[in-house]
Amino acid sequence: MAHIALPPDLPGIRGAMAFRPETARPLNALVEVLLTGPSALSLGERELIATYVSSRNCTHYCASIHGMIAAAHLGGDEALVKQVKTDFMQAAISPKLKALLAIAGKVQQDGKLVTAEDVDAARVLGATDIEIHDTVLIAAAFCMYNRYVDGLGTAQPEDEALYRERGKRVARDGYVQVSEEYLASHAAAR
Amino acid sequence: MAHIALPPDLPGIRGAMAFRPETARPLNALVEVLLTGPSALSLGERELIATYVSSRNCTHYCASIHGMIAAAHLGGDEALVKQVKTDFMQAAISPKLKALLAIAGKVQQDGKLVTAEDVDAARVLGATDIEIHDTVLIAAAFCMYNRYVDGLGTAQPEDEALYRERGKRVARDGYVQVSEEYLASHAAAR
Repeated sequence: MAHIALPPDLPGIRGAMAFRPETARPLNALVEVLLTGPSALSLGERELIATYVSSRNCTHYCASIHGMIAAAHLGGDEALVKQVKTDFMQAAISPKLKALLAIAGKVQQDGKLVTAEDVDAARVLGATDIEIHDTVLIAAAFCMYNRYVDGLGTAQPEDEALYRERGKRVARDGYVQVSEEYLASHAAAR
Repeated sequence: MAHIALPPDLPGIRGAMAFRPETARPLNALVEVLLTGPSALSLGERELIATYVSSRNCTHYCASIHGMIAAAHLGGDEALVKQVKTDFMQAAISPKLKALLAIAGKVQQDGKLVTAEDVDAARVLGATDIEIHDTVLIAAAFCMYNRYVDGLGTAQPEDEALYRERGKRVARDGYVQVSEEYLASHAAAR
């Protein structure tokens, strides 16, 4: 059971957002610009970074939903997502993305662990300053979303099919649109 | 030196925000609603939570600036801020805030460490669901801001007077107004 009175029909971050729409709006605006805004990193690559960080933080809800959103952007390749969670160095992803995931993994632990050598390694493989910035901020932001979901004791269902279905919708419609629907319906139900 | 080409005249998160205004806006909107929006927690109490989490993450820039903003809201009492950083159980703050800081300290490590007993202890001392929610989200958010500032290798000056002066301004004018000034002046300088 959640630590506070969250709406029981909304798992994970959705219940927390419906509880406090004032903070939900900037939280959704941030994830929307970071993960779906203009970027040289593809939608799938950015979702893989979010999934990897959430997996390292052992936040089942976020690792599952962002893994399914990533898969939806990657032609349904759930095996690739699983490989990135397990051992990304062996995954069929670009060397540049591997270097960025290494940076994201350090930010997940502590931002001070990122070295000039880590950043140079990514740059040699083609990463730009904006891509390095966005990798650091995506990793940092998921350290927030993960703690928010875990710290309130939200419901984090096991059923994979639930995440698969919702992942396809978020991949198609975006974070802000999908969240405004349940924020509005919950506000109406009060 | 920062890991990417940040504006050299803006230390800490300010340089990162000027580098990427698209993400700066939701980042500022979030901190504004969390730390300055309507709440039963005072401005000083919320800044103490942000300061405590930043201090535990050893992010000098954030711990210093939020410590000075907290002090500005607390009649200039920098000794109280230092006591909260060092050992909040001995600080002259309310029992309720101590219980909330204990929750924030767990979120800083891992949200899953927060127990029903931690939350009940805060509730018995008068904390509401919204205050518990906001404490968790403030702690989670500063795990993001701290990693963002550290992960990019931003400049984090030692000079206390710099933080004191700026803390007074932010306490008076708010995050969004102060940041829009340097975002605008940096955009104009491009």
